[in-house]
Amino acid sequence: MYSQISKNSPVVQKYGGTSVGTTERIRDVAKRVAAQHAQGWTKLAVVVSAMSGETNRLVALINAVNPKSPPKAYDMAVASGEQVSVALMAAALAAEGVEAEPILSHQLGIFTDDFHSKARIKSIDTQKIEACWQRGVIPVVAGFQGVTESLEITTLGRGGSDTSAVALAIAVDAAFCEINTDVDGVFTCDPRIVPASRLIEDMDFEVALEMASLGSKVLHPRCVELGAKFQMPIVVRNTFTPNDHRRTRVMNLNDKTNLEAAVVSGVTLDRDVAKVTLLGLPFDTKLVSSIFSSIAEAGVNVDIIVHNLPEPGGKTMHLGYTTTKGEVDASLAAVRKVWSKGSSDYTVETDCAKVSVVGVGMRSHPGVAATTFHALSSAAIDIRMISTSEIKISCVVDAAKADSACQVLHRAFIA
Amino acid sequence: MYSQISKNSPVVQKYGGTSVGTTERIRDVAKRVAAQHAQGWTKLAVVVSAMSGETNRLVALINAVNPKSPPKAYDMAVASGEQVSVALMAAALAAEGVEAEPILSHQLGIFTDDFHSKARIKSIDTQKIEACWQRGVIPVVAGFQGVTESLEITTLGRGGSDTSAVALAIAVDAAFCEINTDVDGVFTCDPRIVPASRLIEDMDFEVALEMASLGSKVLHPRCVELGAKFQMPIVVRNTFTPNDHRRTRVMNLNDKTNLEAAVVSGVTLDRDVAKVTLLGLPFDTKLVSSIFSSIAEAGVNVDIIVHNLPEPGGKTMHLGYTTTKGEVDASLAAVRKVWSKGSSDYTVETDCAKVSVVGVGMRSHPGVAATTFHALSSAAIDIRMISTSEIKISCVVDAAKADSACQVLHRAFIA
Repeated sequence: MYSQISKNSPVVQKYGGTSVGTTERIRDVAKRVAAQHAQGWTKLAVVVSAMSGETNRLVALINAVNPKSPPKAYDMAVASGEQVSVALMAAALAAEGVEAEPILSHQLGIFTDDFHSKARIKSIDTQKIEACWQRGVIPVVAGFQGVTESLEITTLGRGGSDTSAVALAIAVDAAFCEINTDVDGVFTCDPRIVPASRLIEDMDFEVALEMASLGSKVLHPRCVELGAKFQMPIVVRNTFTPNDHRRTRVMNLNDKTNLEAAVVSGVTLDRDVAKVTLLGLPFDTKLVSSIFSSIAEAGVNVDIIVHNLPEPGGKTMHLGYTTTKGEVDASLAAVRKVWSKGSSDYTVETDCAKVSVVGVGMRSHPGVAATTFHALSSAAIDIRMISTSEIKISCVVDAAKADSACQVLHRAFIA
Repeated sequence: MYSQISKNSPVVQKYGGTSVGTTERIRDVAKRVAAQHAQGWTKLAVVVSAMSGETNRLVALINAVNPKSPPKAYDMAVASGEQVSVALMAAALAAEGVEAEPILSHQLGIFTDDFHSKARIKSIDTQKIEACWQRGVIPVVAGFQGVTESLEITTLGRGGSDTSAVALAIAVDAAFCEINTDVDGVFTCDPRIVPASRLIEDMDFEVALEMASLGSKVLHPRCVELGAKFQMPIVVRNTFTPNDHRRTRVMNLNDKTNLEAAVVSGVTLDRDVAKVTLLGLPFDTKLVSSIFSSIAEAGVNVDIIVHNLPEPGGKTMHLGYTTTKGEVDASLAAVRKVWSKGSSDYTVETDCAKVSVVGVGMRSHPGVAATTFHALSSAAIDIRMISTSEIKISCVVDAAKADSACQVLHRAFIA
């Protein structure tokens, strides 16, 4: 990406927990940043996560004093991990002869709402960043943390540091946001499951968002969504390889590129799936609506819903939905609030996984569903539930057969 | 102290690194604070240090990335230790059913100058503390850290957390400042050296300041100085014993109490002493003055100075001074700037220690010096240097004989 933009363009570089996991790695990252700065990239901003393992250590500490900590205290403890990384990275850059400014969320002004531990960014004040650049200084900003208007520390929850980086890139009008991590980018499938997996060099926001939502761990859906909303290109690359050409670029691809796009970009796997089936429900659309309202009010995310009509002449039906394994009980409690027929009127299957094929090319290729079902059935893999959209097909399958489902689908569509 | 004041009086309680060294200890401290709150002490404020070992861990991390870290980054890394303690203590109080507000220096407004790593407190905004008390909430404040007017994090250096606590006590007009630590209080000598050492129950600020400056490790001179300046009583007690009566109280003692005061309150030992003697210096007061100006400009603290007049008829003299072992080289470099006669014109003795007897009662007892010298000479301990003030006598002795010097002086004056 650097070869395509002017050296005066702002660029935000984010380094994740493994990239700053040891003091040696922090020094290595500082060397790369300092070298780019020396080459004339005068508007670099660095965003860092906590050192890998540090957030878990802090969570264990606070849980040991109080398993139900007040959110303000919890976020204050956890946010200290990024504070240390910011300080160490600024010090490491100084050791490379580059002046760097360590900046915490309250110092910059990364304002969030006050939903502690899952706060959402409202605005970012870029004044301090611009001032750094004018003085030839590299700003080093804490990821994952924010501050409320009353100066309380908040944290952003899962995918937080990536979201901080993309939000900062948008705020400073960066050319792109670089996410430095411990893999080369987003692959067509997890290479540990499908050895033939290939790096996806260019992805549309749409595909990236589906893949992230459907189980690809590299990018969190939240930061992709933010990037898509503000058209901020995201580049995923490996901190530990010097190769800048091997990477995944997520951006709005122009039509010409889309024409060349593969039908299926990738195969994803999500193992954290449970299937709940409510049995013998009266056929009543109002009841179904109130069931899912109640589940939503409980803050439980439901993914696939299968709503069968009753058999001809019948008056009851089965209603199935999937959620994460950890949210099954909360979802059932929510169901109970609006439908309390009995206690044995449901089944829960936790031996499930969801495999999905994703690609913008699917829009114009109606045969994808047929190929998917054929590939799975040839391998004797039963499909328990199906969900489709314009650019993806998801199938819930037996957890024990999840890996081979990925393999046969990858072979059928990609390689 | 609690029995002597109204329950409406503000009290600041500070807990040091060992007092919050594990999550179990944090829970124990929270139990004590919660119990006092339940008894009607509605204006408690808690100040905490970093968990013991944490500051060293952070210093090691930042030194590993850059042994000469920029002070801003250094302070940001180190201050995270107190941030974690504050959050854990607030969470532990919540577990005891007491609402607590975790407060960092920038949130409260503990404003300091911008001398990073050794900042001095300029002012404390108490608004947030008062608001907590009005809502029945216990404020938990980070010790050791401050913030500049431009929102940079600073740290206060040695004795920092105690200083934070005393400064906060002064700001909120507390009845007293309680320093909770891992010993019962200040003793007449270090009990590991002199088993007969007794706890000093009441001390004048003056004596406490001398003892702290002369090697007693329990209280740092800086917080005693602040307490003395604003007449804020300081109570030192042991976190790990429930006994509130066994403690050292440092305050302005009234005359009547002073009349009963022992001649000598305590014996202190400072092992970090080096003696430098500049040889064959011309007898020139201007030169002597410029030597010590130069040393002061280099930021080196000189303690005892011995300035002999030349022998009758002679024109040169020897000039001796003591400093810490680590500052010998810096002091000699400073001397070189104004007197560069040769390179072998000095001696350095690092096998030294300083024993001192301290007490306000000494003012009216001219025999103390004689007793001191007699006690030391009876034990065949040579005195290399002597320094006296109205309330103390310090002797530099052979390091190997330091412990026995303490023992004979304690026996001669105390027990």
